[in-house]
Amino acid sequence: MSEFRSPVADLMYALEHVVGYERVAQLPGFEHADLDTVAEVLGEVGDFMAEVVAPTNRAGDLEGAHLNADGTVTTPTGFKEAYSAYVDAGWGSVPLPEEYGGGGFPRTIGLAIQELTTTANMAFALAPLLTQGAIEALLHYGTDEQKQAWLPKMVSGEWAGTMNLTEPHAGSDVGALTTKAVKRADGTYGITGQKIFITFGEHDLSEQIVHLVLARTPDAPAGTRGISIFIVPKFLVNDDGSLGERNAVKAVGVEHKMGIHGSPTCVLSYEDATGYLVGEENFGMRIMFVMMNSARLSVGMQGLAVAERAYQQSLDYATQRIQGRAIGAAEESPIIDYPDVRRMLMTQKAYIAALRRMTLLDAVYTDISTHHSDAATRERAAEVVGLLTPICKAFGTDLGNELTSLALQIHGGSGFIEEAGAAQHYRDVRIAAIYEGTNGIQAADLVGRKLGIRGGASFLEFIAEMRGLDAELATAGDDFASIRSSLTAGLDALEQTTAWMLRTGVDDPHSVLAGSSPYLRIWGLVVGGWLMAKSALAGRELGDDPIGASQLPLARFYAEQLLPAASGLAAAATAGSRDLFALDADALGDSVRRTARV
Amino acid sequence: MSEFRSPVADLMYALEHVVGYERVAQLPGFEHADLDTVAEVLGEVGDFMAEVVAPTNRAGDLEGAHLNADGTVTTPTGFKEAYSAYVDAGWGSVPLPEEYGGGGFPRTIGLAIQELTTTANMAFALAPLLTQGAIEALLHYGTDEQKQAWLPKMVSGEWAGTMNLTEPHAGSDVGALTTKAVKRADGTYGITGQKIFITFGEHDLSEQIVHLVLARTPDAPAGTRGISIFIVPKFLVNDDGSLGERNAVKAVGVEHKMGIHGSPTCVLSYEDATGYLVGEENFGMRIMFVMMNSARLSVGMQGLAVAERAYQQSLDYATQRIQGRAIGAAEESPIIDYPDVRRMLMTQKAYIAALRRMTLLDAVYTDISTHHSDAATRERAAEVVGLLTPICKAFGTDLGNELTSLALQIHGGSGFIEEAGAAQHYRDVRIAAIYEGTNGIQAADLVGRKLGIRGGASFLEFIAEMRGLDAELATAGDDFASIRSSLTAGLDALEQTTAWMLRTGVDDPHSVLAGSSPYLRIWGLVVGGWLMAKSALAGRELGDDPIGASQLPLARFYAEQLLPAASGLAAAATAGSRDLFALDADALGDSVRRTARV
Repeated sequence: MSEFRSPVADLMYALEHVVGYERVAQLPGFEHADLDTVAEVLGEVGDFMAEVVAPTNRAGDLEGAHLNADGTVTTPTGFKEAYSAYVDAGWGSVPLPEEYGGGGFPRTIGLAIQELTTTANMAFALAPLLTQGAIEALLHYGTDEQKQAWLPKMVSGEWAGTMNLTEPHAGSDVGALTTKAVKRADGTYGITGQKIFITFGEHDLSEQIVHLVLARTPDAPAGTRGISIFIVPKFLVNDDGSLGERNAVKAVGVEHKMGIHGSPTCVLSYEDATGYLVGEENFGMRIMFVMMNSARLSVGMQGLAVAERAYQQSLDYATQRIQGRAIGAAEESPIIDYPDVRRMLMTQKAYIAALRRMTLLDAVYTDISTHHSDAATRERAAEVVGLLTPICKAFGTDLGNELTSLALQIHGGSGFIEEAGAAQHYRDVRIAAIYEGTNGIQAADLVGRKLGIRGGASFLEFIAEMRGLDAELATAGDDFASIRSSLTAGLDALEQTTAWMLRTGVDDPHSVLAGSSPYLRIWGLVVGGWLMAKSALAGRELGDDPIGASQLPLARFYAEQLLPAASGLAAAATAGSRDLFALDADALGDSVRRTARV
Repeated sequence: MSEFRSPVADLMYALEHVVGYERVAQLPGFEHADLDTVAEVLGEVGDFMAEVVAPTNRAGDLEGAHLNADGTVTTPTGFKEAYSAYVDAGWGSVPLPEEYGGGGFPRTIGLAIQELTTTANMAFALAPLLTQGAIEALLHYGTDEQKQAWLPKMVSGEWAGTMNLTEPHAGSDVGALTTKAVKRADGTYGITGQKIFITFGEHDLSEQIVHLVLARTPDAPAGTRGISIFIVPKFLVNDDGSLGERNAVKAVGVEHKMGIHGSPTCVLSYEDATGYLVGEENFGMRIMFVMMNSARLSVGMQGLAVAERAYQQSLDYATQRIQGRAIGAAEESPIIDYPDVRRMLMTQKAYIAALRRMTLLDAVYTDISTHHSDAATRERAAEVVGLLTPICKAFGTDLGNELTSLALQIHGGSGFIEEAGAAQHYRDVRIAAIYEGTNGIQAADLVGRKLGIRGGASFLEFIAEMRGLDAELATAGDDFASIRSSLTAGLDALEQTTAWMLRTGVDDPHSVLAGSSPYLRIWGLVVGGWLMAKSALAGRELGDDPIGASQLPLARFYAEQLLPAASGLAAAATAGSRDLFALDADALGDSVRRTARV
């Protein structure tokens, strides 16, 4: 009924006409990654994902990954073959440095490839996504020797990588972890402890798995300042590069989850496993922070990627399902002819387009922050990445939940039946608002770490940049009038809440944190509205290009119907913490007292 | 970790202090159902649900209901014993007429009992809920003979009942159904066809199941005007009341659903099964409409009931889970001390309180509409029921999804692990926005059938009644200032959108339908804000009653942080249908064209 199609065309539109990808292609080192080449690569990736990866999605959900008695993990039917084809095609290596066998493409294109992979199969896509995170840590902080030893096969995908952070009592509070790392005479470390929630912590896709493990040396300071990071391979590696004996790390459990069943979420046990220090001792959190923006952006992308897949399915269903007669219809109507179904489709499509543009823009600034020749430009780009990343992560994954719910809703009763497949997307995407820092943590990051940069100037400059679009909107004619007024109102709400946050923060950080989640959502709504406005303005000049032509109705729908929520949220963002803490735990629970009569 | 507690105390507070239950207790026939008696009954029901039904909830999810080779269905461990105890206690019969063995209590108390049952186990609660729907149809339209034959054992719960509407191509469009009913010489009918999505269509809880089946006689008019309704028992009944031979209806499938696994959702096949006409031929839709308000209100209640259960669990988790240090804390903090977690808890609690008051108010008006001695009062009450019911159903179940998601979110990573139990609530409640008329159908009902009553006067009078609270708020002091201003702003938004709907409807019904869902949500937000304001005002006079004391912070949180969304939605409600239909199905799908470069 529903056939997966890779959203390559809209990705290209966004890159070329909205987020200014040409700025990236002009950076030193990225000259070969021009738009024509990118179009060719993404076209091929899109075909590959549609033909090879997308068909594994249902089996992944139905079968799940299983822990065997010997501690190995078997992935669902088709995953191994798809992964092998993925490695052969070299898609994972496209955005990685050429000196380790990569294609030397920008992060922006890496994100686009991740999106196409995730839309095809979120659970499968986590394997290369986590590998990429481990690669980035080694690229930044590994010694040359470590890079030569580990990176080439990780870049090719022959070896997979993982990130080992969480422990039962150390989730959001990473600093509470207790896994021990004891230095040995030979300079390696003996790692002992247990980690939970390790994505693809054990599997049969690759011959080797390279774990990056956060642990604590015996005399390390308490909290996050005493964390170090270690390479702990599944198999030790011989001097000739061949795999040696099995290291003392093994999977002792695979979680039974609500979604992404195809991705084994492991409990890993380390018993004096051999580890190699990355960087220096007690340097772990700094390394984590480097990877964090990148990983958080990728997770934000997951929200839109799964929403895209669910959207496609709901669009197919809405055009095929005949039910009753719409107003004025001479015969029975497909449900797409009903206004409320249209609303659900347009809401999905408009938000997905906005999120795709937002995540790509974040990636563009990431590339500028790492590759621009001018230091000040790099620094400012890094600030923008710091601003946009928590927004992409939290707004993107909250919308992932909301949009997959709309897609399910369009299916009516069959949406609740697992065979229809709509429920899988709703279940799969639910984790994205939680992992890689819960969305509450993202909001705290936004107001706690990012807002205060240069006394708020970082945020205010970005708001001013968005306001800069007004001049073009003002001359764009009546078609753009409601876009202009709605964007202005949204920017006003954003600027006023930002001013409140800056004013309040000094004396009352509690109230700033209390409003952080609605404040982040205002940001998401407004940045999305700004990018959709840009997208519609660009579409005017593209003649009868169909995507260009659809941007105006989408941007107007967004401006008139979605963006106005920003004003409603301003009250919540600035309400302060008084009533939040007015009821203690007893009072919060007192509706359930067994009291007959009050 | 988490122990279920029945929310009896808040139910009693709402009945006594917010929705004016004394108006019901004064109605002819309900004199025995005074508040003291109600408090006693609900206290006992609450204990029963906590002790007997709530413990079956997890097993219901994990085991599910199964179809056996012989067409019988086995319910999960504990369901049969719990149902038997439920029948013995007589809880299902409390709100049913005394002449058939019931307690003669009002619908309002019946709804409260349904809420307590659903909070304990939504899947289990569907069995008595559907039985009650079938009973209501027979009470209104059955012959005396039929009532005597079927009702006593259905009222006691010894016999269960079902509603058989849906067929594969007749979901929202009930009129498209094709199940045939052919009259026989003896006056009975032979029923032939297949029904899907039949909740508790077959099970082992009761010795007999009484299906109410919608079908079409051979010469019936097309569409909804040609539907008749039949009693089709699982076992024919002998003249002495004993069960006779098996009727030709059987389960041929049980769906594999995302949630409510304990409730068997059946495909039923009828092969010339014996049926008894209810009312007259082609009278089926009228009977359906009688039951519909009642069933829709009950489904709206499911949203808040499952949210209550999820809330309790997330509150327990938030008080027990230690993670990091909150601002100013000397030692490690439970996560309830973090403002964003508080926001999630307060959002749940405030919405749940508002929904409980809203559904109970709808039930109060239902009782007035059926039992008041004055015809005009009955008629007006019926109008209010017509207004409030789609709001309770759609707003209540949309919030059911949103609030169970917040409860899951509070659990962090463990929320996504099925063992924690938070995911079950999120999965279970998802069906409620779909069945008994999708929430889109509810919104269409609100603007299509209800808005036009007396040229809009029915809605405007209710708005005026809500505005009447302003006088009391005006003199209530500073503590109520923000409640007053927010409620006024919400009422303004509601009144303006209502005026727009009335103005637009005549010429452009498409645009009215296009805005129907956000319009319904505005109604929900405002009615909820009004009831919370009433609740807080009442709390002032109750001294140190803890529930009374918690109403002001809850109402203020609702007014300052949740209700302002109404203004943001007004734009969407009144945007019209232009952009909704600007993109055809091709354009809606064109982001996925495999086009390398646009």
